[in-house]
Amino acid sequence: MINLEEIQKLSKSTPSKIVMLVLDGLGGLPHPDTGKTELETANTPNMDKLASQSICGLSHPISPGITPGSGPAHLALFGYDPIKYTIGRGVLESLGIDFDLKKDDVAVRANFCTVDSSGVVTDRRAGRIPTTESSKLCEALNEIKLSGVDLSVVSVSEHRFVVVFHGDGLGAGLNDTDPQQEGLAPLKVVGSLKENKKTAALANEFVEKAKDVLSNSHPANMLLLRGFSKLPDIPEFGELFKLGSAAIACYPMYLGLSKAVGMKTFKCISVEDELSTLDKLYEDYDFFYIHIKKTDTHGEDGSFGTKVKEIEKVDALLPKLTGLKPDVIVITGDHSTPAALSGHSWHPIPLLIYSQWCRKDNVHSFGETDCASGSLGNLPAVEIMPLAMANALKLNKYGA
Amino acid sequence: MINLEEIQKLSKSTPSKIVMLVLDGLGGLPHPDTGKTELETANTPNMDKLASQSICGLSHPISPGITPGSGPAHLALFGYDPIKYTIGRGVLESLGIDFDLKKDDVAVRANFCTVDSSGVVTDRRAGRIPTTESSKLCEALNEIKLSGVDLSVVSVSEHRFVVVFHGDGLGAGLNDTDPQQEGLAPLKVVGSLKENKKTAALANEFVEKAKDVLSNSHPANMLLLRGFSKLPDIPEFGELFKLGSAAIACYPMYLGLSKAVGMKTFKCISVEDELSTLDKLYEDYDFFYIHIKKTDTHGEDGSFGTKVKEIEKVDALLPKLTGLKPDVIVITGDHSTPAALSGHSWHPIPLLIYSQWCRKDNVHSFGETDCASGSLGNLPAVEIMPLAMANALKLNKYGA
Repeated sequence: MINLEEIQKLSKSTPSKIVMLVLDGLGGLPHPDTGKTELETANTPNMDKLASQSICGLSHPISPGITPGSGPAHLALFGYDPIKYTIGRGVLESLGIDFDLKKDDVAVRANFCTVDSSGVVTDRRAGRIPTTESSKLCEALNEIKLSGVDLSVVSVSEHRFVVVFHGDGLGAGLNDTDPQQEGLAPLKVVGSLKENKKTAALANEFVEKAKDVLSNSHPANMLLLRGFSKLPDIPEFGELFKLGSAAIACYPMYLGLSKAVGMKTFKCISVEDELSTLDKLYEDYDFFYIHIKKTDTHGEDGSFGTKVKEIEKVDALLPKLTGLKPDVIVITGDHSTPAALSGHSWHPIPLLIYSQWCRKDNVHSFGETDCASGSLGNLPAVEIMPLAMANALKLNKYGA
Repeated sequence: MINLEEIQKLSKSTPSKIVMLVLDGLGGLPHPDTGKTELETANTPNMDKLASQSICGLSHPISPGITPGSGPAHLALFGYDPIKYTIGRGVLESLGIDFDLKKDDVAVRANFCTVDSSGVVTDRRAGRIPTTESSKLCEALNEIKLSGVDLSVVSVSEHRFVVVFHGDGLGAGLNDTDPQQEGLAPLKVVGSLKENKKTAALANEFVEKAKDVLSNSHPANMLLLRGFSKLPDIPEFGELFKLGSAAIACYPMYLGLSKAVGMKTFKCISVEDELSTLDKLYEDYDFFYIHIKKTDTHGEDGSFGTKVKEIEKVDALLPKLTGLKPDVIVITGDHSTPAALSGHSWHPIPLLIYSQWCRKDNVHSFGETDCASGSLGNLPAVEIMPLAMANALKLNKYGA
């Protein structure tokens, strides 16, 4: 695989436009009664028509057999080697809520949780307390003073919030305090290197003081920390591909991911709003990333039928996208979330790349089984961006 | 992918023979009226018959989406990682005209061009002046004396020639002087490292003196330099694969490429001559690379019909090749050159590998769409040589 330095040398700015539509968790598994996946079950005349004018295949975010989180899966879609470049959960959440994270900050994602009198976790999400309540608790936690560093505690939604430690010489190589299952006590933070030990001490100090602040706020009487991280050293998407890029999404994490690679972000409230936003922004950018969340949510909930409905909803709105006549359209998912598994999975994801120059194959229906016979074959997701760029005629020749 | 050191350890010399037929720019795009590519349109009974006895697939020279120049595309076909091993344009042209390039020489490809009185380029190719004229100009430029190094200026054809600087401690990490578009002045040569600065000074001195020599020879009253380069440090093809190898081609650049990796080269004047040469040399070598140029030329010219005719011409002559009954036959291109794009493209290239041991697939027609369903799938071109070697039973087992 060609590296990003080479890609950057080959990329050129042109007026052509690329739209990448990502249906989160798109890939699925067959329903036992029909043998058809969620996407194959959905009535998707617009995607099928587009598939018949496209090259199709199946993409794998990391490598075959590996189930990715949303972070690495999206980095791969954006053209970054997801093994080489990593973005921690704390950074993702911070960027997602528009928190102005600085180079030296250490951010961590936090959950309110419930512990019993012996300190054992009885609910890792504190009954998903409403955001109105958790915001107040975050304000209280924000008053905590730590030795030598400033602290920010900011609510995200429901039980989720972000803690940011501002200071010099802080490392982020730290374990989570979340024991990952109920019935266990939260873990202590431990760091091995000097800069990590410093952050570990601060994090443990914060947890102790927070426990006092929260002692009377059952069910949110404790917190769990996950994904200590700093801003990654990652080349800017726009500089790399010489694209003016807009990210259109409803959920903070995906806006955060896009912002982390340097895209301009536009927060929406629904799929309809996302497509209207695309329409409004269309003249101002060259590259559009549109994120559809609920396909994944329904998959996570194990709800085959509602995932089917969500795919059909997106399909029905697709003409608003295709009507803009982008030079290149990519439709895929960041990973599979089969309802049958109620979670992310390793299964490769249906992929179509449409352009005037794509050399279409014989796939006429957008689904897992048909895409498996597409001319793209099984493709690492990291190669989608170079293909999209090529199809937009935005890449110069490599070598003489 | 297994590395070349390992390949070299596994390779063994046997009497079996491999013929690799490369139709330059073979891959295409569908004609809007028929939906068929150049290769799919061409009547190719011999290639189709061979495909039905072969394994087929689509190969990509560098990685998906990347459009290669002929240099890296051929290196991949010869089994070299085209990202790791690079051959500059100056070296390619020098080898192609049989110039005896030494290890320390710096070679650069030059074009005669036309500049106006303000020094701005008005024709990057000086009206493609005839070779007879440019040869005389090259002889005049060859008289230029530079401080401390010897110089060779050698005509290639039409406006194209080669400049070689002979001396110690010369680097080749230099920019082109070609501004790549008309209306701009030629650029100065700049080098950052010490050895590059030395060459940069010599190159600029040469350009200044050449401008004087050419001042009265409108339209060829100036020159442009592209691709400063030195012989690459590349393992010999014959030692790597333990093959006696013959390169059969009409065009200097491909002979140059073959010579750069250590093949014996045989210059021909036509496809017929190439196949007669194969016949004559057949007992003397184990590996034959045959290069067909005009498929690419017609593609570059945007001429769908003549590209089809050239493919048909090669197909009609194919029995001269198959009649020799090589143990392994590879037919492919170095890259795609769709007439629709009038230039190289990123599209993967039809590939067939025939041998008694190939485990043939269900492809019965040699074309882009059918090869997409071949059992080789989408294959990096660098893996063709190991497959050819395996099919010739020339590779030992890896590991115990």
